[in-house]
Amino acid sequence: MATSSLLRSISNCGFSGLVSRLALSSPHGRVCVSPCLHSQQRSNCTSSKIKVDLNSSTGVAVMQMQSPPVNSMSLEFLTEFNITLEKLEMDKSCRGLILTSSLPKIFSAGLDIMEMYGKSPERCGEFWKAVQEMWLKLYGSNMVTIAAINGSSPAGGCLIAISCDYRIMAENLRYSIGLNETQLGITAPFWFKDTMVNTVGHRNTEIALELGLLYTTPEALKIGLVDQLVPEDQVLTKATKTMAKWLAIPDHARQISKSMMRKPTLDKLLSARDGDVKNFVNFITKDSIQKSLQMYLEMLKKRKT
Amino acid sequence: MATSSLLRSISNCGFSGLVSRLALSSPHGRVCVSPCLHSQQRSNCTSSKIKVDLNSSTGVAVMQMQSPPVNSMSLEFLTEFNITLEKLEMDKSCRGLILTSSLPKIFSAGLDIMEMYGKSPERCGEFWKAVQEMWLKLYGSNMVTIAAINGSSPAGGCLIAISCDYRIMAENLRYSIGLNETQLGITAPFWFKDTMVNTVGHRNTEIALELGLLYTTPEALKIGLVDQLVPEDQVLTKATKTMAKWLAIPDHARQISKSMMRKPTLDKLLSARDGDVKNFVNFITKDSIQKSLQMYLEMLKKRKT
Amino acid sequence: MATSSLLRSISNCGFSGLVSRLALSSPHGRVCVSPCLHSQQRSNCTSSKIKVDLNSSTGVAVMQMQSPPVNSMSLEFLTEFNITLEKLEMDKSCRGLILTSSLPKIFSAGLDIMEMYGKSPERCGEFWKAVQEMWLKLYGSNMVTIAAINGSSPAGGCLIAISCDYRIMAENLRYSIGLNETQLGITAPFWFKDTMVNTVGHRNTEIALELGLLYTTPEALKIGLVDQLVPEDQVLTKATKTMAKWLAIPDHARQISKSMMRKPTLDKLLSARDGDVKNFVNFITKDSIQKSLQMYLEMLKKRKT
Repeated sequence: MATSSLLRSISNCGFSGLVSRLALSSPHGRVCVSPCLHSQQRSNCTSSKIKVDLNSSTGVAVMQMQSPPVNSMSLEFLTEFNITLEKLEMDKSCRGLILTSSLPKIFSAGLDIMEMYGKSPERCGEFWKAVQEMWLKLYGSNMVTIAAINGSSPAGGCLIAISCDYRIMAENLRYSIGLNETQLGITAPFWFKDTMVNTVGHRNTEIALELGLLYTTPEALKIGLVDQLVPEDQVLTKATKTMAKWLAIPDHARQISKSMMRKPTLDKLLSARDGDVKNFVNFITKDSIQKSLQMYLEMLKKRKT
Repeated sequence: MATSSLLRSISNCGFSGLVSRLALSSPHGRVCVSPCLHSQQRSNCTSSKIKVDLNSSTGVAVMQMQSPPVNSMSLEFLTEFNITLEKLEMDKSCRGLILTSSLPKIFSAGLDIMEMYGKSPERCGEFWKAVQEMWLKLYGSNMVTIAAINGSSPAGGCLIAISCDYRIMAENLRYSIGLNETQLGITAPFWFKDTMVNTVGHRNTEIALELGLLYTTPEALKIGLVDQLVPEDQVLTKATKTMAKWLAIPDHARQISKSMMRKPTLDKLLSARDGDVKNFVNFITKDSIQKSLQMYLEMLKKRKT
Repeated sequence: MATSSLLRSISNCGFSGLVSRLALSSPHGRVCVSPCLHSQQRSNCTSSKIKVDLNSSTGVAVMQMQSPPVNSMSLEFLTEFNITLEKLEMDKSCRGLILTSSLPKIFSAGLDIMEMYGKSPERCGEFWKAVQEMWLKLYGSNMVTIAAINGSSPAGGCLIAISCDYRIMAENLRYSIGLNETQLGITAPFWFKDTMVNTVGHRNTEIALELGLLYTTPEALKIGLVDQLVPEDQVLTKATKTMAKWLAIPDHARQISKSMMRKPTLDKLLSARDGDVKNFVNFITKDSIQKSLQMYLEMLKKRKT
């Protein structure tokens, strides 16, 4: 179920041009549960959906999402993502993580809609736990985390970005970023909302979530949804330079400061995880929601032809 | 007790030119407890203080405040306002509400000072409950609410505006907006404060409330107290166009998102309503406060002559 | 242990040029426990570390920090600072307080590192209580408090500034301001963090604390860490003019508004004061922290030669 044509339909989109861009991902692919992280000075390893390159001399890992066509976050994708994060987190030699995409034009299209359509409640619950796990690990990471956003980043893709410590985005008017779930008739859960409030404040989040806004790159910079815009071919270079500055700060003091800022938000989900899974499953398996997802999928199919 | 001359005294006012503009309203007028809302395709109805025009084909109601001279919020005004809101809220055909004024130069001058001066504690309490009710209904509305601010909007007038989903104001340097209660020696209650913090953030609210600031329209735009400025004759047109964009979003998802952002703030008042009434009554019936209101009223009378 | 040479090493410093500037203070000096505040129309009084000049006709006190070389906040300094604040707070004739430095180029270099290095747990605890007391008194003051920031203001110096109601800073690219504790391997406690969040928001605080950022004056203005920049020789004049505007607001209403904004933040420390002292003492007396302070002190000594 290739959806690369979806990308062609992406246009500038601010307040006046709302479009939704959640995309379908291929439901096949192999989970590489033990991606090799590093063995010597510089190592890289290709597993099916995530590629990790850890430079042991700098202590910086580059984690590339490489799940065509649009890095949709399926259960398989998330499982591999989470295992990779955990391994890096426990690896003392890894102090910084740069998150980027190996695909053109897209950072990540967000949660895989196929995981929410026509699935059993059990499977939906398993999927949601993996989404929670991804956020808990990334937002609470002890590593310095920098998102090198080299393409569009709607919905869950935006969540990945705002869970990092710093966001550098390619300056390209065809790219956009935002929590646009409302456009699909679904809603971002409270911890997506909390993460966005912590990034751009209450009022920007309110209007963004009520309208499901996708921001162009200059708009995203203006409200603080990203920290810097650079030409497309310099995103990774800039991320690497920025990482060096962050790593010049004593780890211990930086980690305590980060925890002081983020722990209350993480604790809200940690103390309500089961309820949050139930809420998601109840919501997503409703007939009305399934129907609107179906309509959305049909609309996507038509776009392709 | 006409106070139209008050309006003449309105001047630009930012940090350097603070003036207070709460105004007196006429203590007569009839409450139309059952304003006809709509009967056919397009209906309009004139009750004494609120005029409603619901277009059933678009699902958008325009609610005009028309209580000369300055749309002061008396108990009568509030009662009619609240009944109208409730009827629209329960009317399935109404999805959007545009709030505006039928009077020149003023959106609303805020709470009627005559309801706070020389009144019995019982009457003060009844008045305050109506103010609470207005905010609870408006801030928590399931409809899309847009304030078309076609004139000055001090104190309670500002509260109405910031309780809506979106604010479009007439670009006119003689108009101002803000919670300026402190200027009169009274203070905004915690839920006025919470609503402002949710709109412009903690620091802007702190300085605004400590000084009772009224912002010029460019200042209000800059801190985010309003979302857009348009030429005076285009306020309603722009509000109508903006409403169409908001109504393109699925109601259900938009409402859940709105509730997620606003429910904690609404719940704070809901769980402390009686105490808040008591606080208001105790405060406003104090000799010192009554005296400063008296002085303010005398100052207003002098301005007229 | 003179450290005036430290000041020479201060350079522009934003994201790309982080330096730490906590400085050592002279460990001698006499505490004047009863600084004369005022006796007639205009009085001034010089105690060892704080100079107070209260103008009884305007009700405005100017409090100058004068502890060479860099107004480091030692236990002696804090004790005198707190006694002075308390006396002014209880003095009905004093309605406004302007805080400034009598030293060139520096507002305050923050907490005295010598109070944290090689001291007994008891002494560290006594010191920390005095820091808490300073913040509780200043952030919760009923007076109008304006910081006239006529020099650099790192760490605890920044805390003093952001605890005031308004901040006017000298426009000088060699001056900087920020909570840069992380740079020294130590961390700002939660109430420093809360005060900064209340001033510049969550995201600005997160990045500032994780990196221990010192902001140049234009950067500080941009994020709202200071409210105004003026030429260096006009800082006090501007503060005096601004104070007059604040004092035009009824005290009672201004104080209630201020309390409404700040009480929840003050209460967080008040209900956790002992635990906060214990945390500080445990943290600062750790071998690893003592070692990094030692390295910092040695680095400072080398700079001097």
